Amino acid sequence: MREEDVPVYEKFLAGRVSRLVASEVRELLKLTEGKDVISFAGGLPDPSTFMKEELAEIAREVILRSGDKALQYAPTKGVLVFRETLKGFLRAHGVKVSEGDDVIVTTGSQEAIYLASKTLVGPGDIVIVEEPTYLAALNVFKFFKARVIPVDMDDNGIKTDILEEKLKALKNEGANVKLVYTVPTAQNPTGITLSFERRKHLLELASQHDLLLLEDDPYGYFTFEAEKPPPLKTMDSEGRVVYFGTFSKIVAPGFRLGWALGPWKIIDVMELAKQNVDLHSSTLAQYICMEAIKRGVVDATIERARHLYKAKRDIMLRELEDHMEDLATWTKPLGGIFIFLALKSAMDTKKLLPEAIEKGVAYVPGQAFYVRKDGSNTMRLNYSYPTPDQIKTGIRRLSTLIRDKVT
Amino acid sequence: MREEDVPVYEKFLAGRVSRLVASEVRELLKLTEGKDVISFAGGLPDPSTFMKEELAEIAREVILRSGDKALQYAPTKGVLVFRETLKGFLRAHGVKVSEGDDVIVTTGSQEAIYLASKTLVGPGDIVIVEEPTYLAALNVFKFFKARVIPVDMDDNGIKTDILEEKLKALKNEGANVKLVYTVPTAQNPTGITLSFERRKHLLELASQHDLLLLEDDPYGYFTFEAEKPPPLKTMDSEGRVVYFGTFSKIVAPGFRLGWALGPWKIIDVMELAKQNVDLHSSTLAQYICMEAIKRGVVDATIERARHLYKAKRDIMLRELEDHMEDLATWTKPLGGIFIFLALKSAMDTKKLLPEAIEKGVAYVPGQAFYVRKDGSNTMRLNYSYPTPDQIKTGIRRLSTLIRDKVT
Repeated sequence: MREEDVPVYEKFLAGRVSRLVASEVRELLKLTEGKDVISFAGGLPDPSTFMKEELAEIAREVILRSGDKALQYAPTKGVLVFRETLKGFLRAHGVKVSEGDDVIVTTGSQEAIYLASKTLVGPGDIVIVEEPTYLAALNVFKFFKARVIPVDMDDNGIKTDILEEKLKALKNEGANVKLVYTVPTAQNPTGITLSFERRKHLLELASQHDLLLLEDDPYGYFTFEAEKPPPLKTMDSEGRVVYFGTFSKIVAPGFRLGWALGPWKIIDVMELAKQNVDLHSSTLAQYICMEAIKRGVVDATIERARHLYKAKRDIMLRELEDHMEDLATWTKPLGGIFIFLALKSAMDTKKLLPEAIEKGVAYVPGQAFYVRKDGSNTMRLNYSYPTPDQIKTGIRRLSTLIRDKVT
Repeated sequence: MREEDVPVYEKFLAGRVSRLVASEVRELLKLTEGKDVISFAGGLPDPSTFMKEELAEIAREVILRSGDKALQYAPTKGVLVFRETLKGFLRAHGVKVSEGDDVIVTTGSQEAIYLASKTLVGPGDIVIVEEPTYLAALNVFKFFKARVIPVDMDDNGIKTDILEEKLKALKNEGANVKLVYTVPTAQNPTGITLSFERRKHLLELASQHDLLLLEDDPYGYFTFEAEKPPPLKTMDSEGRVVYFGTFSKIVAPGFRLGWALGPWKIIDVMELAKQNVDLHSSTLAQYICMEAIKRGVVDATIERARHLYKAKRDIMLRELEDHMEDLATWTKPLGGIFIFLALKSAMDTKKLLPEAIEKGVAYVPGQAFYVRKDGSNTMRLNYSYPTPDQIKTGIRRLSTLIRDKVT
């Protein structure tokens, strides 16, 4: 029946479909549905980090006591008292909120990326990204017809010396470099953290070349080691950083709440963009997250996540060491939810995936995160969602599959 | 301090600011803050329609019992069981859901308008709208560089005979007419409802000229009279209607949840667009609204809204009759939350507004809703939010002000 629609919708959609790139990750996830497959492919928090009893009580109270406001429309930038609470939370976690800064509440940090791009990126504008980088951000930059330029990473993050050379070359070309998009702490997909020295260098380059930095920081709140470099936002003294955050990993994804913090001149234009897109984000979610901050539920969730994910990371690292040392190399993330693995043999992880699913284990082929067609021997492994037993079994299934292929 | 930012952000924002038109309505609302002003300018539901006790209990139960899912990420199109429940709700309210249809959950119906436009509208594409029409939709069409063509309305809605002439003229031009955007029932800003005959004519024209209709229906669920025409979606037999709805007026705006129902080929591309914009809408809001439908809370809210807004509409109409019969004409809405008023004298309601606020009453100058620079003597009056006493006092203040000006 579905093919019998009378209008030829392609006429109306002409040129639109190809402009929108489907998220490969999300399409792949569908492959594992309803099968006995241990999935390292997702990016979901462990639901046991959700503080359900506390959140249920907060939701009930907020609706009963403040329902007239919490169930009503809200300003586009967000509920004022929530935005003030959020600023306090950020300061308490070492994120500098300058006097010239403002904050806008968004429908997840995805919308923060989208609104910043809608505001700042036009056709042909150059956006520099880490190679590999967060896929959903890449798709947004492509949608706004940016010229996306990748810069390689090593264990200390984006190689700022290569970035420096590229910026000089682009300057000589007369090219319009506007932005560097970075996930500097426990990056998605690699789990790599940008070193303090590189952060300084990146900020110097931004100053020299008059760039803005889009700092995406979903994982910086629950790193596993005591020592970690401060956010770029905190190190910046020139107002060059627009900082994105999300409640998805520090309360729960179901609230779909994120934010952008940055120079008010940029936030104000993002506000205008947001009026077009969705008017405002859920008022109720803002009131609940505000109470969750005030009552320490966010900080308690962060502690749960820190301990749980550190333990799971350690299990995955140990399994990899025990079973795959001769087959692959991988990153040792100090936070976040992903390990990035490169096979020593020139095997195509994308071609391997259907067979892996057949053997009961799934991952995301790393190539999806590359701008160039690199990384065909890489994969992203998530350790936050699977149980410890699943991590053990899954890594063993993976190592058996690859060992069989190699030998 | 705010002017001392080091980077010249205008460089980064070049060309962006002017592309985004601030919502005049929202800017005006700010004028009344903290003053003793009776505002007819908003579009807020009366919070007494919110079923706080029931919603508080639902929220608590959903988080406690289904928190692992309700607090987790969701598919971009929305939670599957919620989408099925929503389809059942729509059918029960006389909205046809065809076999070739699909539904996508959006962050308010604003996002449905935005995603449909992002999917269907390119530079120079012609979008036909009612004159006057919903401002926030107009801003979206302008953002996507549509050529917006207004068609006048009378008490029976958009004049389809004029539309027919325009479509013929545009066909002769070789112009690419894609869409008609309409709020056919209790329209914003006028409160006018498109008659059954005109609905038929509009669908015929869509078929003849191969157009899609975007039907925006926030108010159709709580009309005040027994007799009302069915949605265009229900009358359509060719799959030409994309139907937008919202929970803002039938549960509460704070959930920020809406939907688009239409041919799956279009909904599928809207899904891709939504991946870029915000990945998905609040999972928790979807679970709460699902339970609210199942437990009859939505239908009970609809009944509250129907009775309350009918009473308030009647009060406003009576006050207008008693105090402004010689000064103005106005619409008699069969539903919704707005009355549209035209002054008999050639007075500019935009210029009058600061003085009105001074006298303690606010409205939205009607010109904001026009594509042409018409309607300078009109205003939109909201009756859903102010109390009966405020409606009485506010209309008297308004009539005194205008009478003083005229005489």
